Amino acid sequence: MEKLVGNLLYGQSGGPTTVINASAYGVITEALKKNDIIEEVYVMKHGIQGALNEEFFHIGSQDKDQIELLKHSPGSAFGSVRYKMPSFKEDETDYIRLLYIFRKYNIKYFLFNGGNDSMDTCHKIAEYMKHVEFDIRVIGIPKTIDNDLPFTDHTPGFGSAAKYIANTMQEVAYDMLAYPKGKVTIVEIMGRHAGWLTAAASLASITGYGPDLIYLPEVPFSIEKFKSDVRRVYGESRQCLVAVSEGLVNEEGILIGSSSGLKDAFGHFQLGGVSSKLSTILNSEMRISSRTIELGTTQRAASHLQSLTDVNEAIEVGKKAVQYAIKGEHGIMVTIIRKDSDDYKVKFGKHPLDEIANIERTIPASMINEDGNGVTQEFIDYALPLIEGENTPLFENGMQRFSKFEK
Amino acid sequence: MEKLVGNLLYGQSGGPTTVINASAYGVITEALKKNDIIEEVYVMKHGIQGALNEEFFHIGSQDKDQIELLKHSPGSAFGSVRYKMPSFKEDETDYIRLLYIFRKYNIKYFLFNGGNDSMDTCHKIAEYMKHVEFDIRVIGIPKTIDNDLPFTDHTPGFGSAAKYIANTMQEVAYDMLAYPKGKVTIVEIMGRHAGWLTAAASLASITGYGPDLIYLPEVPFSIEKFKSDVRRVYGESRQCLVAVSEGLVNEEGILIGSSSGLKDAFGHFQLGGVSSKLSTILNSEMRISSRTIELGTTQRAASHLQSLTDVNEAIEVGKKAVQYAIKGEHGIMVTIIRKDSDDYKVKFGKHPLDEIANIERTIPASMINEDGNGVTQEFIDYALPLIEGENTPLFENGMQRFSKFEK
Repeated sequence: MEKLVGNLLYGQSGGPTTVINASAYGVITEALKKNDIIEEVYVMKHGIQGALNEEFFHIGSQDKDQIELLKHSPGSAFGSVRYKMPSFKEDETDYIRLLYIFRKYNIKYFLFNGGNDSMDTCHKIAEYMKHVEFDIRVIGIPKTIDNDLPFTDHTPGFGSAAKYIANTMQEVAYDMLAYPKGKVTIVEIMGRHAGWLTAAASLASITGYGPDLIYLPEVPFSIEKFKSDVRRVYGESRQCLVAVSEGLVNEEGILIGSSSGLKDAFGHFQLGGVSSKLSTILNSEMRISSRTIELGTTQRAASHLQSLTDVNEAIEVGKKAVQYAIKGEHGIMVTIIRKDSDDYKVKFGKHPLDEIANIERTIPASMINEDGNGVTQEFIDYALPLIEGENTPLFENGMQRFSKFEK
Repeated sequence: MEKLVGNLLYGQSGGPTTVINASAYGVITEALKKNDIIEEVYVMKHGIQGALNEEFFHIGSQDKDQIELLKHSPGSAFGSVRYKMPSFKEDETDYIRLLYIFRKYNIKYFLFNGGNDSMDTCHKIAEYMKHVEFDIRVIGIPKTIDNDLPFTDHTPGFGSAAKYIANTMQEVAYDMLAYPKGKVTIVEIMGRHAGWLTAAASLASITGYGPDLIYLPEVPFSIEKFKSDVRRVYGESRQCLVAVSEGLVNEEGILIGSSSGLKDAFGHFQLGGVSSKLSTILNSEMRISSRTIELGTTQRAASHLQSLTDVNEAIEVGKKAVQYAIKGEHGIMVTIIRKDSDDYKVKFGKHPLDEIANIERTIPASMINEDGNGVTQEFIDYALPLIEGENTPLFENGMQRFSKFEK
């Protein structure tokens, strides 16, 4: 295969994770190493919006320390966006503009880092470039705390969010033991349709301090069942720690907590409010004192408690994306494949984007307990290796150091 | 002074902090060292309730590893309680029972670790023992994340909670920069009458990523002023990060967020719900998209992000309490005194319990900005040294290790 010499354009998309910047680090360091093929590395400011508006960070001009700090920075250091590309058959405007930009900046490698919606965008761009026969390699790099991308064992970002949630649950469970008679504490955890993060609360239980009840969006939620579960646990121990997914739905598929009625750019309802609804029910109908914790965006931003496994894999998928692109791959997403071994080991692979876009992988039934209020050992075995190891933050005056780039 | 040979009884009281167990560690290790004077060390299970019910941990029988883990364990490893002692002039029952227990177990040293309400209990016990001329040394050990005890520069527990809050604010502020057009994020922070913890959110700003607006319970809250503040900040940057105290009150002294109407054992209203009330106002009245974060009890339980300064001082106040008791002090609380030096240095002192009990120290006006929506440099200079240093958690399989004791 002929060497495709030119520039690389990388972008971040969708909701941040604490390790999307570690993937950026992987892409950037690998691309800089391959300087016989990749001449310049550009990063879009605010994802595809930056590409359309010609707003780039030129990596060659950046401070090296700032690139190192990517491994410790939450959020999207280069900016993200939620922007839905129309199909090019419907409206070609954005695609024509992208093509113009790619030509102007001699972009031969387009690497796009995101979750489900972003892989859809990435797929559409890959298809269009093939359609117009523009020679470019388009590669998707997975990222989402939600762990809901298909054809990959797990997604970068999940392990760190899971670690933060599990440790927080452990702390709260231990804190609750302080009092002889406690309360019901309801912790609301992110995840629209897939309960992976809520299920991660269960990892706390390996320490002896974890949630008593876990409600996942995969299991239709019954308020009567919830009340009877809480009554039983609280009756036995005068304490009850509950993990609920923000995306809980009842038998009819109606969200328990869609409080605001607002939709985002992709038409998804804004979630939140499940825990306070359930707390009100316990307080008023059952006279059981309860309180709520809504961790909100801290779940995707808690860089101070990253999983080292997650950080290292995030770096690696970034590097692999560059390697696959150089090898001539186009229209694929990098995947993580768990090896069949006693110890946790992974290798990296690829999967066509057209089969990935817009599929949400939920928790299989075998990982959910029979009672529908907890997980099985299979889930613990699956998730526990993903939170292993710490990526100790770089503290200065008790605060963390994050990357800052100049446009 | 004659040596008072006998046993020591230590107890934890009120809401946990991540370092109350570090004070327990200080008490225990110092007492075990003074074994010519202190023969046995007992710890009450669930504070004063354990003392009344004769439920103790005998420290001599405990595993040494578990004692070491106290430095890393949140919550109250020995159990706490919220129990209000009546004045002994009103009802002597509890006091007579305590006296019986003290005699039975040859308790000569009574060390009580807690916040405002607990120092009141400690004071009452000290007074009663003097009244009945029982030879015992009663010492209070300060503890509260709220930092509202008087006559001490700050309280053990505050620094770690402040560090967790400040780092969380930094992460959320950085995360918000991901999007070109953001939201208003309202973070609700603990603190009934004193805004120290809410003010600690400001420490994030030294990194360049911090809250735009801070509302403290010390400043009467006006919803109109809040709306105009948010309109201004959001208009300028399309982002706005707000820290609000759960204890905000309006001009008439009415709580903005007393949602549940429930009171605790001390007659205090249960707080919570300020952020969701304010979020609803922004969404419905101003059509500005907003979301909330309610960290809840994680603020007092986040052992994974302790301040090393705080941990070390907490150990030290525990040790000092034993030393003061042996020296013959009675009816005092150990205090932390900041030295007048360029670097942050402290020494330890004492103050009579009768002047401490039930006084809540709020933030002085000089630490609050003129506009009433932020802090001054004086606050930053005061609080920043308290979050310095990390007490790296002891991780195993990605989870923390906490103490466990046998009764």
